[in-house]
Amino acid sequence: MSELKGACIVGQSGGPTSVINSSVYGVIDTALKNPAITRVFGAEHGIVGVLNDRLFDMSAEDPKELELLKYTPSSALGSCRYKMKDPDVDDTDYKRILEIFKKYDVRYFFYNGGNDSMDTCNKISKYMQKVGYECRVMGVPKTIDNDLFGTDHCPGFASAAKYIATSCMEVYQDARVYDTGIVCIVEIMGRHAGWLAAAAALATYKGAGPDLIYLPEVDFDMEQFLTDVERIYKEKGNCMVAVSEGIHYADGRFVSEAKTSATDGFGHAQLGGLAALLANAAKERTGAKVRGIELSLLQRCGAHLASKTDIEESYMSGAEAVKNAVAGVTDKMVGFKCTREGGKYTCKPELLNLTDVANTEKKVPLEWINKTHDGIEQGFIDYALPLIQGEPDLPKEDSLPRFARLKKVIVKE
Amino acid sequence: MSELKGACIVGQSGGPTSVINSSVYGVIDTALKNPAITRVFGAEHGIVGVLNDRLFDMSAEDPKELELLKYTPSSALGSCRYKMKDPDVDDTDYKRILEIFKKYDVRYFFYNGGNDSMDTCNKISKYMQKVGYECRVMGVPKTIDNDLFGTDHCPGFASAAKYIATSCMEVYQDARVYDTGIVCIVEIMGRHAGWLAAAAALATYKGAGPDLIYLPEVDFDMEQFLTDVERIYKEKGNCMVAVSEGIHYADGRFVSEAKTSATDGFGHAQLGGLAALLANAAKERTGAKVRGIELSLLQRCGAHLASKTDIEESYMSGAEAVKNAVAGVTDKMVGFKCTREGGKYTCKPELLNLTDVANTEKKVPLEWINKTHDGIEQGFIDYALPLIQGEPDLPKEDSLPRFARLKKVIVKE
Repeated sequence: MSELKGACIVGQSGGPTSVINSSVYGVIDTALKNPAITRVFGAEHGIVGVLNDRLFDMSAEDPKELELLKYTPSSALGSCRYKMKDPDVDDTDYKRILEIFKKYDVRYFFYNGGNDSMDTCNKISKYMQKVGYECRVMGVPKTIDNDLFGTDHCPGFASAAKYIATSCMEVYQDARVYDTGIVCIVEIMGRHAGWLAAAAALATYKGAGPDLIYLPEVDFDMEQFLTDVERIYKEKGNCMVAVSEGIHYADGRFVSEAKTSATDGFGHAQLGGLAALLANAAKERTGAKVRGIELSLLQRCGAHLASKTDIEESYMSGAEAVKNAVAGVTDKMVGFKCTREGGKYTCKPELLNLTDVANTEKKVPLEWINKTHDGIEQGFIDYALPLIQGEPDLPKEDSLPRFARLKKVIVKE
Repeated sequence: MSELKGACIVGQSGGPTSVINSSVYGVIDTALKNPAITRVFGAEHGIVGVLNDRLFDMSAEDPKELELLKYTPSSALGSCRYKMKDPDVDDTDYKRILEIFKKYDVRYFFYNGGNDSMDTCNKISKYMQKVGYECRVMGVPKTIDNDLFGTDHCPGFASAAKYIATSCMEVYQDARVYDTGIVCIVEIMGRHAGWLAAAAALATYKGAGPDLIYLPEVDFDMEQFLTDVERIYKEKGNCMVAVSEGIHYADGRFVSEAKTSATDGFGHAQLGGLAALLANAAKERTGAKVRGIELSLLQRCGAHLASKTDIEESYMSGAEAVKNAVAGVTDKMVGFKCTREGGKYTCKPELLNLTDVANTEKKVPLEWINKTHDGIEQGFIDYALPLIQGEPDLPKEDSLPRFARLKKVIVKE
């Protein structure tokens, strides 16, 4: 494959994670050092920044501040939830993107996000192929939801999982401290896939976690839930429950549905308030004191509890995207192929077709959910435990996090 | 003062903290090594365990497990919210306590808790004096609320403050990531004193914290709040707010009051749901996307973010209680006397009269609250910053916390 010289754009999209900036640092760091890549731009708020001609000159940043991106949560370049239209119906945005790519001679496009972002990435890749504009397009995965197809796991999941497991272990200590017990419900993110709620089982595995765990992969039965909570509360004097925000009844209605009707840009229902709803139901049934705890944004930005493994793999996925693109690869996402034989964990990059990845959701395998649909099997523990390993040496200032401070110099020409 | 030989009881009471077990370890570790103290008992669920003759033999524990108490959140011995009656009205409980003290020859009583617990401790101390039973009674402070009278600060506050500041810094990154802004409300514990909500100002001091902070020391004005949120949201495109759960209107009603009517054992209203309430009000006013985040139990059990300074001072307060009691002191609480001259922080124990401490609440000084009552002045930063310093070397297993595992052997005789 002939060498392709030109500029690159990297953008971030969708809900942020604790380590998505480590991936973007992997892209930027590798691209800045590669002679084939003439300029390195960051798109402000993902594809929206490309459409609005709002690009940051990443070479203007202090390298030391860029390196701090490894430990800085949230999307440093800014994110978006912009849904690209089908180009056969309306190609306005695509023409605009092509115009910007031509303006800056952009020959490399790296898009860092989850399911919807890989859809955007795929559509742009296919459009550039169709119009014959040579640009290598690579997806760099991230999502705490861990639901991207074809990869062992997704950057961002492990750090959120570690936050959830640690927080559940701490809440477990606290929520059984009085002579009168309580029922404690912890609400965890995950609309359609229960990977994050399953991570609460890591706390249970360590002897200090939820008695009951409910995932959206199976139907939720309120009566069965209340019966089980009552039984455990009577037996143990306390009951701790972890639920995915996306749990639903057999007819498909979200359990939290009655609480909110707001939707986000993709038409997804905005969930929340489920912990309080279930806590109130448990209170009515048992008469116990109850606590509903929603981990909310904390679980996806808790960088102080990031997994070192996750930080390193996130960087690697960004770096691999650049290396492969320069080597001639396009239209792929960097996934992970892992082995766990004999307790030894290995992780290697694997290139997946963007077409296969876009909009396909990977759920928790049913064999990792117990028969009564209220707990997690050992298979998941063996899968997840290697991912959360390692304590990063977080930079601190006055014992508080020292996050990257970027200048974000907008390119004007 | 003549040497007093006999057994000791240590108990924990009230809401737990990340470091209350470090205080109790300070008591146990020091008492086990002191020849004047013949036996060391832990009371199961505080004074309730004394009344029920449920005492743990602390000498039966593995010393290594005991040492892990320094890093184990919540009250390892179990806590209670038991309100002692006025002994002049009903002395039943006091007679029972005396009976248990005589049964085990208890000559030292250490009670580890906050305001209500110091009231219990004081009543027991005065009763023992009145009936002429020689027993040295010492209060060992704890409360994330930081509202105990006479002491520079309370063990437990700093670790909760560090958790709050760090979490606010992380949420700040996350809650401004999209091209469309949001209004984010963080609800923080503190019924009558705003020390913990003020800790959110440490994040603002680091350039990544709330725009507005509301404490219960001053009256809350909903209309002014909505006007300010709207102004900041229009100016910056985002607005972050920290509120104490105890904020109230000028007539004294809690802002959250309409949401709940439950009360705890002391007749305090159980607050909660305030973040959602304010977020909804902000949404109605601004039309912005909103997030209400309640830090809930997480902030008081987040031992993984404990302050090393807090852990060490907590241990010291427990150790000092024992040393002073053996030396003849009684009827006191171990407070802290600190200096911060020239940026150099020192902390020394200071003995305070239980009578003065019991049921007196220390609030945030009004000069540390800004004139518009929606922010915190530098005086608080200078006060709080030294307290949160230092990263403890937390014991981990599989990158998850390794908490103390006590045998809790009940004494039978």
